[in-house]
Amino acid sequence: MLIVQKYGGTSVGDLERIESVANRAAKSKKDGNRLVVVVSAMSGETNKLVGYANHFSKNPPKAEMDMLLSSGERVTASLLAIALNEMGIDAIAMTGRQAGIKTDNNHTYARIESIDITSIIESLNDGKVIVVAGFQGISSNGRVTTLGRGGSDLSAVAIAGALKANACEIYSDVDGIYTTDPRIEPKAKKMNFISYDEMLELASLGAKVLQSRSVELAKKLNVRIVAKSSFSDAEGTIIEKEIKEMEAVLVSGIALDRDQARVTVREVSDRPGIAAEIFTMLAEEQVNVDMIIQNASTDGTTNLGFTVKESEIEDAKRVISNFDHDIGSMDFDANICKVSVVGVGMKSHSGVAAQAFSAMAKKNINIEMISTSEIKVSMIIDEKNGELAVQTLHNTYELDK
Amino acid sequence: MLIVQKYGGTSVGDLERIESVANRAAKSKKDGNRLVVVVSAMSGETNKLVGYANHFSKNPPKAEMDMLLSSGERVTASLLAIALNEMGIDAIAMTGRQAGIKTDNNHTYARIESIDITSIIESLNDGKVIVVAGFQGISSNGRVTTLGRGGSDLSAVAIAGALKANACEIYSDVDGIYTTDPRIEPKAKKMNFISYDEMLELASLGAKVLQSRSVELAKKLNVRIVAKSSFSDAEGTIIEKEIKEMEAVLVSGIALDRDQARVTVREVSDRPGIAAEIFTMLAEEQVNVDMIIQNASTDGTTNLGFTVKESEIEDAKRVISNFDHDIGSMDFDANICKVSVVGVGMKSHSGVAAQAFSAMAKKNINIEMISTSEIKVSMIIDEKNGELAVQTLHNTYELDK
Repeated sequence: MLIVQKYGGTSVGDLERIESVANRAAKSKKDGNRLVVVVSAMSGETNKLVGYANHFSKNPPKAEMDMLLSSGERVTASLLAIALNEMGIDAIAMTGRQAGIKTDNNHTYARIESIDITSIIESLNDGKVIVVAGFQGISSNGRVTTLGRGGSDLSAVAIAGALKANACEIYSDVDGIYTTDPRIEPKAKKMNFISYDEMLELASLGAKVLQSRSVELAKKLNVRIVAKSSFSDAEGTIIEKEIKEMEAVLVSGIALDRDQARVTVREVSDRPGIAAEIFTMLAEEQVNVDMIIQNASTDGTTNLGFTVKESEIEDAKRVISNFDHDIGSMDFDANICKVSVVGVGMKSHSGVAAQAFSAMAKKNINIEMISTSEIKVSMIIDEKNGELAVQTLHNTYELDK
Repeated sequence: MLIVQKYGGTSVGDLERIESVANRAAKSKKDGNRLVVVVSAMSGETNKLVGYANHFSKNPPKAEMDMLLSSGERVTASLLAIALNEMGIDAIAMTGRQAGIKTDNNHTYARIESIDITSIIESLNDGKVIVVAGFQGISSNGRVTTLGRGGSDLSAVAIAGALKANACEIYSDVDGIYTTDPRIEPKAKKMNFISYDEMLELASLGAKVLQSRSVELAKKLNVRIVAKSSFSDAEGTIIEKEIKEMEAVLVSGIALDRDQARVTVREVSDRPGIAAEIFTMLAEEQVNVDMIIQNASTDGTTNLGFTVKESEIEDAKRVISNFDHDIGSMDFDANICKVSVVGVGMKSHSGVAAQAFSAMAKKNINIEMISTSEIKVSMIIDEKNGELAVQTLHNTYELDK
């Protein structure tokens, strides 16, 4: 099998952990796999370098930041290759450039445009394990770029896609994807499989194991991801395109997102396009609006409600104050949370949402906003009811079975 | 003027020092110079990385070491570029590869083969200061290489040569080249000028400011070096090809090398080629033989004397023990030192050596071995007389005048 493994910052957090990653990679190689390993910087390194840069500037040039930050992954990659060679495994370290990862010129948040796998293939054919410095690539004008948060996952998925690898194993400090947060519902179960779309919904809802960008890329390239722990030998969760078997499962997970605040704008004048203007300006100011509801009121004005991240409340206030002449009042409520039911089974089964609403009603939990997609039902409720709602829904859909 | 500046590890040893280097570079730029700055890793960084590597292996693969070690200079270069931009100076950081430094494939001790200055010239024409990560280049197969000890000096000299820069300023923690070590002879004077050949002799004799490789390259490319301190505004010493004025100066400096040990091999059999065999095997075992004397003895055997670094005595013993059948006995003496008189003036003036021998005799200093070149007289003497010899010779040639 051709396997791409990716190890995050905590998995390579110190020299002992790098040694243990080397053991794991060596085992996979000895099991007969052809192997590419993608690594992050040792945890803490990137923050240290950012701190150095901020000593000189609050807003350092992005291209220089990329050259600075890309050094952390190079150190880990070299060290892992050295450790593997010492174990008798022929291994070679490659920078993003050497691995052929070509990006656009959007420094600190570059997008991978193509991968030239010639060097990787050559070294694989020589029987070598390839250790790639994650998170980085090279732009068309030859400068080092970085891929933004979760960038090493992106490197791994992109390489796995280009190589048509059998699997892309993403190692972190958790051993897979759970039906919900085990700290909230101790009966939460690790899933064996989850579809890209479900994972995307869960990721956007705050599941930390994988970022949406990586899952989107995996879906696009049809890369089979296995989320595993680098600290245990547990099986992990496979993330792949949905298969028949999955559809039998109605609901696969429950997610809770506490980082939500509701903005209510009252008596918005009925001038056409005013809502669009507000949301356009919010987007321009990088305020991410999540759920939206708009009610027609009786006097010709409307009320507009939407949710944002708590950290973006001040930005939202500033934007909306520009519309003083068009609105009556606005208020903000950070004491809310969003609970979501996710499952591909909803596509072919009706009644999932109704079941959720009814379960919430039985527990006297008031639902303040609702949004649904083909595979998700999200509800905004009072923050104090968040954990109860998760437990109730987990039980309703029998996710512990 | 087009200037290349190079700052060593102590000059960029912490964030405050990098700030002060930025100020110095900014001043040079504001004075109207076109500027390329080459930097080393922050002092201690390279040793830290070597320590990491040695955690995994006593003998790590050299190519992986190069990728590992090259990261230190990249960090410094990025940080300096960030600091300069914050001061309003348009600056761009470049890796060795981006600066066009192409080397052979001899990892950890690569030789610069060529420099493609296209990118540097383009950025200079855009009015930018270019900050280059020193010590590194790229091999023909696209891998990162490093240039060995003193590698950042080599980068700077090579770039200065390729750009035909007006000067290559090498900044360190000393403010120039002295007629001798000021800790031994307080009357030692900083030289305004010194020729490449004199500097080469002094460098090989232990003057730490510049390594021989860099001086050789500067001589070959006719690069004018200015050795300066990054901690003061003192003038520094100019190192360039010898000019008429220099020839008037008989002697320019006195050097003392304490790291010398004498090996004496007695009753070497008169089998032809035996001395050559001994020295060949010493060279193969990386023992650097410095001075050699061979005396014919009366009984058909000869005595062979030579000097090595003190740290290489054990290696020398091991090699010579292979010749047990061909020699009578051997002994070792680490209590010696080498004092040398250097000056291009010797080329056209006779009597310099005689003057030295006579000065030593007056102080009752016994000379045990002598070696001379066109511009140098070296003498092996008892270690306890080293400082007295330096002071005596410094006075003899009136170097304090």
